[in-house]
Amino acid sequence: MNHRWTIAFDADDTLWENEQFFQASKHSFTELLSGYVDPEHLDERLAAAELRNLAHYGYGIKGFTLSMIETAIEVSGGKIPTAAIAAILTMGREMLSHPIELLPQVRDCLEALGDETDIILITKGDLLHQEQKLAQSGLGDYFDAVEIVSEKTPEVYQRIFARRDRPRAMMVGNSMRSDILPAIAAGAWGTYVPHDLTWDHEKAEAPANTSRFHQIAHLGELPLLIAGL
Amino acid sequence: MNHRWTIAFDADDTLWENEQFFQASKHSFTELLSGYVDPEHLDERLAAAELRNLAHYGYGIKGFTLSMIETAIEVSGGKIPTAAIAAILTMGREMLSHPIELLPQVRDCLEALGDETDIILITKGDLLHQEQKLAQSGLGDYFDAVEIVSEKTPEVYQRIFARRDRPRAMMVGNSMRSDILPAIAAGAWGTYVPHDLTWDHEKAEAPANTSRFHQIAHLGELPLLIAGL
Repeated sequence: MNHRWTIAFDADDTLWENEQFFQASKHSFTELLSGYVDPEHLDERLAAAELRNLAHYGYGIKGFTLSMIETAIEVSGGKIPTAAIAAILTMGREMLSHPIELLPQVRDCLEALGDETDIILITKGDLLHQEQKLAQSGLGDYFDAVEIVSEKTPEVYQRIFARRDRPRAMMVGNSMRSDILPAIAAGAWGTYVPHDLTWDHEKAEAPANTSRFHQIAHLGELPLLIAGL
Repeated sequence: MNHRWTIAFDADDTLWENEQFFQASKHSFTELLSGYVDPEHLDERLAAAELRNLAHYGYGIKGFTLSMIETAIEVSGGKIPTAAIAAILTMGREMLSHPIELLPQVRDCLEALGDETDIILITKGDLLHQEQKLAQSGLGDYFDAVEIVSEKTPEVYQRIFARRDRPRAMMVGNSMRSDILPAIAAGAWGTYVPHDLTWDHEKAEAPANTSRFHQIAHLGELPLLIAGL
């Protein structure tokens, strides 16, 4: 039955840990700025800078690093020492080289889907960094195609799935906003795999009135779900 | 005859101006740091930071901005004021939103190649920014495919051209190192269109002993070149 399907996976926090590294950096950032601003206010200001800069920087760690530097200068009224800015640069580079930690049962899931399934990766973020993470994950050979995109819209999913030429397509991921809603709007199935840590920007209500939405606890449940569809 | 060809274009400094914006930013950067270091030494230090960071940041303006900030802190021994770092952040954002200036005869060339030619774009750099520049250029409809890659190697060209399924492929660009040499190594034609401003990192000797290398003064000469091959 699997020859009917294209199964597309999100990468960050679906195949491997990602948000935990952002949160660890935000924690270090808060400590660094503790003499200048209270932590809650800092969170708000950084989140505002990230959203404001998305249109310029897109997703990924380089833009996040630039937003941290901008926020540090702003909230300190320019009083932050340059040593702290150098520390932010170092935090950014460390995030870019963090080791890959696969989530539970990812490899089992990809094995179980087997060669008949058209398996692809659809992720946003910095092109080079996403390629490096896939290479380090050791999962590269499971994927028939890798699509690194600047935004996950219904049009992007439609275009990618049309090229795959299978009767059915499913997007699997931890972001209701980027993985599930636009994939379902594009006519595909959407399977939500919640992750404890998910960026607020990626949260949304589950879709109503569709039989193409599913939710599983971890990727180990995916092969059985697909077999039953 | 054009139905035989895939013609792939580089983007920056082949279709539109790019390096001039980097050079203008380097000039402003030099002025900003003029109290701390002599211009020539600064050039060297910034170039060294850019190369050192390529493996982390890849190509593009976000990484360039981070390298400028790092260099400013380094060369000033940490004495650079935060206002100057804020100015570097602004320079980076302005580079990301500069208007597109097409190079001479680009549109005429794409028109003359016509629908029969498989026309594609192959560029490296920040994914989002390259997509935005193509959208702003108004040239999007001429391209049958757009490939934004993290590095231009012979393997990357081979993979892209194999998918296009035309008997002949040519890469056209202003970088001997990234556009011409690896495309020729991949078995394709390489047509060099020199630009007055080219990043030192992209320079290399012309390939010897191949009839698949050509050089033209501007893109207006390309349709006639291809007609004669």
